[in-house]
Amino acid sequence: MNRKMVFNTLGRMSLVCAACLLLPAAVSLIYGEYESVRAFAVVSAGAAALGFLLVLIFKSKNHVIYAKEGFAIAALSWIGISAIGAVPFVISGAIPNYVNAFFETVSGFTTTGASILEDVETLSHGMHFWRSFTHWLGGMGVIVLVMAVVRNVSDRSIHLMRAEMPGPVIGKLVPKARDTAKILYYIYIALTLSEVAFLWAGDMNLFEAFVHSFGTAGTGGFSIKNASIGAYSTYSQIVITVFMLMFGLNFNLYYLMLMRKFRAVMKSSEMRLYLSLFVISTVIITWNVSSMYDTLGEALKDSAFSVSSIITTTGYATADMNAWPSLSKGILLVLMCIGSCAGSTAGGLKVSRIILIFKQITREVRHMLHPRSVNAVKFEEKDVDEATQKSVAIYLAFYLLCLVTAFLLISWERFGFETNLTATISCFNNIGPFFGTQSCYANYSAFSKIVLSVMMMLGRLEIFPLIIGLSPATWKK
Amino acid sequence: MNRKMVFNTLGRMSLVCAACLLLPAAVSLIYGEYESVRAFAVVSAGAAALGFLLVLIFKSKNHVIYAKEGFAIAALSWIGISAIGAVPFVISGAIPNYVNAFFETVSGFTTTGASILEDVETLSHGMHFWRSFTHWLGGMGVIVLVMAVVRNVSDRSIHLMRAEMPGPVIGKLVPKARDTAKILYYIYIALTLSEVAFLWAGDMNLFEAFVHSFGTAGTGGFSIKNASIGAYSTYSQIVITVFMLMFGLNFNLYYLMLMRKFRAVMKSSEMRLYLSLFVISTVIITWNVSSMYDTLGEALKDSAFSVSSIITTTGYATADMNAWPSLSKGILLVLMCIGSCAGSTAGGLKVSRIILIFKQITREVRHMLHPRSVNAVKFEEKDVDEATQKSVAIYLAFYLLCLVTAFLLISWERFGFETNLTATISCFNNIGPFFGTQSCYANYSAFSKIVLSVMMMLGRLEIFPLIIGLSPATWKK
Repeated sequence: MNRKMVFNTLGRMSLVCAACLLLPAAVSLIYGEYESVRAFAVVSAGAAALGFLLVLIFKSKNHVIYAKEGFAIAALSWIGISAIGAVPFVISGAIPNYVNAFFETVSGFTTTGASILEDVETLSHGMHFWRSFTHWLGGMGVIVLVMAVVRNVSDRSIHLMRAEMPGPVIGKLVPKARDTAKILYYIYIALTLSEVAFLWAGDMNLFEAFVHSFGTAGTGGFSIKNASIGAYSTYSQIVITVFMLMFGLNFNLYYLMLMRKFRAVMKSSEMRLYLSLFVISTVIITWNVSSMYDTLGEALKDSAFSVSSIITTTGYATADMNAWPSLSKGILLVLMCIGSCAGSTAGGLKVSRIILIFKQITREVRHMLHPRSVNAVKFEEKDVDEATQKSVAIYLAFYLLCLVTAFLLISWERFGFETNLTATISCFNNIGPFFGTQSCYANYSAFSKIVLSVMMMLGRLEIFPLIIGLSPATWKK
Repeated sequence: MNRKMVFNTLGRMSLVCAACLLLPAAVSLIYGEYESVRAFAVVSAGAAALGFLLVLIFKSKNHVIYAKEGFAIAALSWIGISAIGAVPFVISGAIPNYVNAFFETVSGFTTTGASILEDVETLSHGMHFWRSFTHWLGGMGVIVLVMAVVRNVSDRSIHLMRAEMPGPVIGKLVPKARDTAKILYYIYIALTLSEVAFLWAGDMNLFEAFVHSFGTAGTGGFSIKNASIGAYSTYSQIVITVFMLMFGLNFNLYYLMLMRKFRAVMKSSEMRLYLSLFVISTVIITWNVSSMYDTLGEALKDSAFSVSSIITTTGYATADMNAWPSLSKGILLVLMCIGSCAGSTAGGLKVSRIILIFKQITREVRHMLHPRSVNAVKFEEKDVDEATQKSVAIYLAFYLLCLVTAFLLISWERFGFETNLTATISCFNNIGPFFGTQSCYANYSAFSKIVLSVMMMLGRLEIFPLIIGLSPATWKK
């Protein structure tokens, strides 16, 4: 274990975090919110000092990052940025309780969008901006960001990327991991800015357009309105429906489009299943809720928005999904667990894992019928090796284990089965809203908030990096 | 596909079924319930005729049974005996609706114990006996019974056994499958009779002792009282607590005890985890529900009974578990899915699968830290080959897929999330009682009852045999 390199990288992370905090400080300044300016400036200065200290103390000649170091950096940096990012909320008095502020920040970075605020509209512009900006940073990944902006990160830094990027198989777009990180961020920025333009052209002002584009891009879901996107026009709702879906696609597809490899894009079986799930679920839910609406068009608009919001694990709302019939809620709950494509900013199990699981089940059935036959599992026209297949199946098992454990840990709360289970599922898959008798996470105890915060991080980092990065075996010299 | 052999074996199955129906006919005769006698006699005669017909028509020189034939026989015989076994309920007027009677019979044979009867106490003695006797037959397995009593079953009939016996790995106790079947039934009969003796010594009459022993032995859960075992003395409740636990153990352990290999028994890691789960869950639930009881002893008695009943997937009750706090209900729900040991009469995923899943997760973590290391997975002191490991992980995935599908199929019912989900889990794992706003399956629609019946069979046969046995690919010439 190369501890020096781990802490050195964490120092760089802290510096990037300090720089990021200047943005909401500037926004606060524009709106004359001096209390917020002070809070962001203080924390930014603190993070910068911590960063310099770490970089100065931990100098390593050996720049190599192996799997171990990658996991340790991922685990510690995600906990670190959440711990730091929560402080401005406390200092400014926006969220006085630190556990609440930590929950809110973890929810932001992990792009969950679960909130402990019962009335979000009381926050200052600066705080709103920061809250939504964490979504944007967490969406593509803070480590990927550091790799894109900081020089001299190890050539073996694919291990770092692997620890943060979602999906069963991580490939580089171009030979160098750092260039891959840059390309991903360029695409991310371009898509975000085009959403800002579309929203600004509607009934949102520039600030609202930015904040909600951050929330869409990171598939997060924090809004500045208590009514979420329901507070805006049908035009804005449709724009966000489409952009949520777009951010749920594998970013490799956008790179392929840039390379004009359209045929390869169309062949993507993950994209096809993802879009099919969206269409089929929307049709069934529209039919199921139609009696609650005056026109079929309205039912379709709200259903499409909700399905897009839930399958991409964003969590924006235009309707009270909790009041929908149980079939619709059931479908949404299943979509929560499935999530979107690997290599997107979304959470959940990922559609590619679902495909691989299905193919393995089919193979197992064939194997039981013809024990001597050899059946390869193919995905996106490539053979999937045994190790990857196995790790997908094991991931599902570990996923279930985490879900059951967290559900039991919070099940002493008096909100009943539906509330506790859907809250756990919602946090773990980084969605946000949940069903049942409660609608706000504020009513959960501090203990449960910490459990759910851990679940959000486990969900965002896909379990293993957090567990391995923090396990004593990793830290042995 | 050796169709002749399949239908020939199904004919033998029908003959055994006809013989089994004479038992409740005799019981009805003893109690002077002539309506019931007639119903059982008519159906027995019909089953016998069908059996002879099939055996006469389908004569096969080739007695070999491969995996294909095994699955086909298992699937068809389980559907067949349920379809035949339901008829007496309809003819006698005890359950006039055939879908209801089919649900009740599937629930019996699969040892689920889910009932559509709102008032069970109105049934005749003969009907009660038949209902509980289906538990006993289904517990050890109808195919295993046929193998034990009918001669000339193929030497390759281990494929038949494999299709019906629960657990990830099926071993023969002795070289011949038929002898193994016999030994299993001898142990089963001995244990059942000793429970009858214990119960008869208490406040149950001989009829009650038999009926409830059948329900315990098959880990079924049908009772002749609306209050289930709550209608009997503390002594009877404790006897049943212990016997339920015993029938949840792998029957191989009893064979080892007979062979005086006590050391091997004590080393069984599956038994250890199973008993640990029982003890830990009982302690937590006792603490959790203690405020609802006058004395700690009563709380302990009801908790131990409920945990034993749920982990063994029996479903007997002495308390209204639905009124318990959500932590207790959460633990019980998790135990429902875990179930008991492989090679027992219980349902659920089986403790051995849970162990193998855990070990694979640990191995995956180790593999991610040290990609070049080789880590074997051991179970009960033997190396587990890759194919078995994989099939355990795939089984879990398939299990989940079935659960989610069935939940969605019945989620249009207006009983809410908790009711629909726990009813699905309860039927699939062959338990019976469920939580939520409903307490009786009678309120579900005919469509949902059929979905739940299929789930009970999928759970009892561990999914693959039913799917493979009915798939057109299996039936191709």
